[in-house]
Amino acid sequence: DSKLKIFSLNSNYPLAQEIAELMGVELGKSSVKHFSDGEIQISIEESIRGCDVFVVQSTSAPVNEHLMELLIMIDALKRASARTINVVMPYYGYARQDRKAKAREPITAKLVANLLETAGATRVIVLDLHAPQIQGFFDVLIDHLQAVPILSDYFKSKDINPEDICVVSPDHGGVTRARKMAERLKAPIAIIDKRRPKPNVAEVMNIVGNVEGKVCILIDDIIDTAGTITIGANALVEAGAKEVYACCSHPVLSGPAIERIENSSIKELVVTNTIQLSEEKLSPKVKQLSVANLMAEAISRVYENKSVSTLFD
Amino acid sequence: DSKLKIFSLNSNYPLAQEIAELMGVELGKSSVKHFSDGEIQISIEESIRGCDVFVVQSTSAPVNEHLMELLIMIDALKRASARTINVVMPYYGYARQDRKAKAREPITAKLVANLLETAGATRVIVLDLHAPQIQGFFDVLIDHLQAVPILSDYFKSKDINPEDICVVSPDHGGVTRARKMAERLKAPIAIIDKRRPKPNVAEVMNIVGNVEGKVCILIDDIIDTAGTITIGANALVEAGAKEVYACCSHPVLSGPAIERIENSSIKELVVTNTIQLSEEKLSPKVKQLSVANLMAEAISRVYENKSVSTLFD
Ligand SMILES: Nc1ncnc2c1ncn2[C@@H]1O[C@H](COP(=O)(O)O)[C@@H](O)[C@H]1O
Ligand SMILES: Nc1ncnc2c1ncn2[C@@H]1O[C@H](COP(=O)(O)O)[C@@H](O)[C@H]1O
Repeated sequence: DSKLKIFSLNSNYPLAQEIAELMGVELGKSSVKHFSDGEIQISIEESIRGCDVFVVQSTSAPVNEHLMELLIMIDALKRASARTINVVMPYYGYARQDRKAKAREPITAKLVANLLETAGATRVIVLDLHAPQIQGFFDVLIDHLQAVPILSDYFKSKDINPEDICVVSPDHGGVTRARKMAERLKAPIAIIDKRRPKPNVAEVMNIVGNVEGKVCILIDDIIDTAGTITIGANALVEAGAKEVYACCSHPVLSGPAIERIENSSIKELVVTNTIQLSEEKLSPKVKQLSVANLMAEAISRVYENKSVSTLFD
Repeated sequence: DSKLKIFSLNSNYPLAQEIAELMGVELGKSSVKHFSDGEIQISIEESIRGCDVFVVQSTSAPVNEHLMELLIMIDALKRASARTINVVMPYYGYARQDRKAKAREPITAKLVANLLETAGATRVIVLDLHAPQIQGFFDVLIDHLQAVPILSDYFKSKDINPEDICVVSPDHGGVTRARKMAERLKAPIAIIDKRRPKPNVAEVMNIVGNVEGKVCILIDDIIDTAGTITIGANALVEAGAKEVYACCSHPVLSGPAIERIENSSIKELVVTNTIQLSEEKLSPKVKQLSVANLMAEAISRVYENKSVSTLFD
């Protein structure tokens, strides 16, 4: 029987700590420091020989720093004779660069998958990839968790009459996600269908579905600068929505995001803790739910060689 | 016949520009920007289909940023059908992490080599690797250039009587490098041999060789915080040296380096431009020599399939 070890890097120590506590283990002793010139210096301060090691790291901003921490840690674990190296990546950075949309673009999401494998990752656990196809970028085993149940349960706990709810996708790319939540809430869905009638003419917001008098829940995977979601929320209010909530798995919240959300008609923004939020992003409108339980359960199942997908049955 | 293209990333644009001018070509059109969340966005703005592409990038500080720029650029070039992708890396970051000195250390210099190959580099041109063994970390072809001739020529141009010169290695690891310069200057060598007589007792500087009345030239590959070199210089003066110069290939110059050099007995610090120096590092004591000619010649020879090693005959 090989031993389980969980290590945290610098992107989301509180989440790793919470996972370890839920699993009744201590985080492995290690440190990530920098040499004087800024190069990363990793030291693992306990033996991990023959262990099943799980490393918790989101590649959130500063993404390149966090990714290199992870790659160097994997290299160190490999050379220290870990039995398996399981990368637990609650947020997968560079996921939006998942295809060539224009000529001569990189596909950085695939590059990152290759880099992780090259460094020595033997398995990867992720949550709500921007596109589920990114699973296929890996040759090693990958488990893909979902936050929809966590987000849905939170809205269920609000005791809103299901008939008053409408789950809204902010674009046509997110309809599958909206449907999943709608099924759990036993509510209908609507879609915001942005169209540009002619080049250089402002986009028109067309709402497909009935939102009048409804409590709308906008759902997306990533909320970054919050442009799409706040414009969508305002369009819903104009179309007669009674209240608008927004939710997402990954609160990137860069640039003007918080200001936009605070000035929007969004009543509450519900997110998870796959990305640690800095002080200034903890707006009173932002509610953060923990994925620690889900991740802890997934880690246990991987460690015990049990099915992870049945977590969602 | 395939076409030559040279691209520069963000670490050392002036050097890339100088190389391109010497070769009589224009730098390829590309840009490295950042999305709002800090992720790197690369765009290559001209066709490179079937071309032999050379990408100039030093992985100097911020090292992780510069390394990721390079990896993403390589990915983009590969997907844009470059015939060959030649990485020109005047300074190779993470080179000092080239072995396990302690248990559970990573070997990041090897990781970096693997990452470059995984991204799609087909050949690498480097200059004065911290250890020449790093060449063996690569499976793709690698050309290893040397700055010793450039540094030596500069000191020759000072017209000091060769009999007055002594080339000094600041530690026993650098003796081979000191010998190479000494041969070119037809001067003897000396070695600073630091020893700790007992644990927790201050190191003793023992100078092997005769430096009395000599113009000493300390030579190292990297000068980082400048501790070793400035302590060495002061020891040389105490041992009767007339003047002390210092030189190196890679001016990392982090933390207290400039202050230490300015307060030391070093008369002049001669470096190359493998690393671009920020404004505040351009001390009047620092003389920067260009490696552009050397790199341009190496690129031409690789492109024309001629010997690079004969550059040093
Ligand atoms: N970090 C990023 N921030 C904003 N846009 C991005 C980012 N990474 C990639 N993109 C762009 O977003 C597009 C993909 O978004 P989507 O259509 O939602 O899958 C691509 O065309 C990318 O150029
Ligand atoms: N960026 C860095 N700055 C300072 N020391 C480093 C750096 N990278 C690695 N090292 C350490 O420097 C030692 C190698 O230096 P050397 O003995 O000169 O080859 C290793 O033991 C490393 O732990």
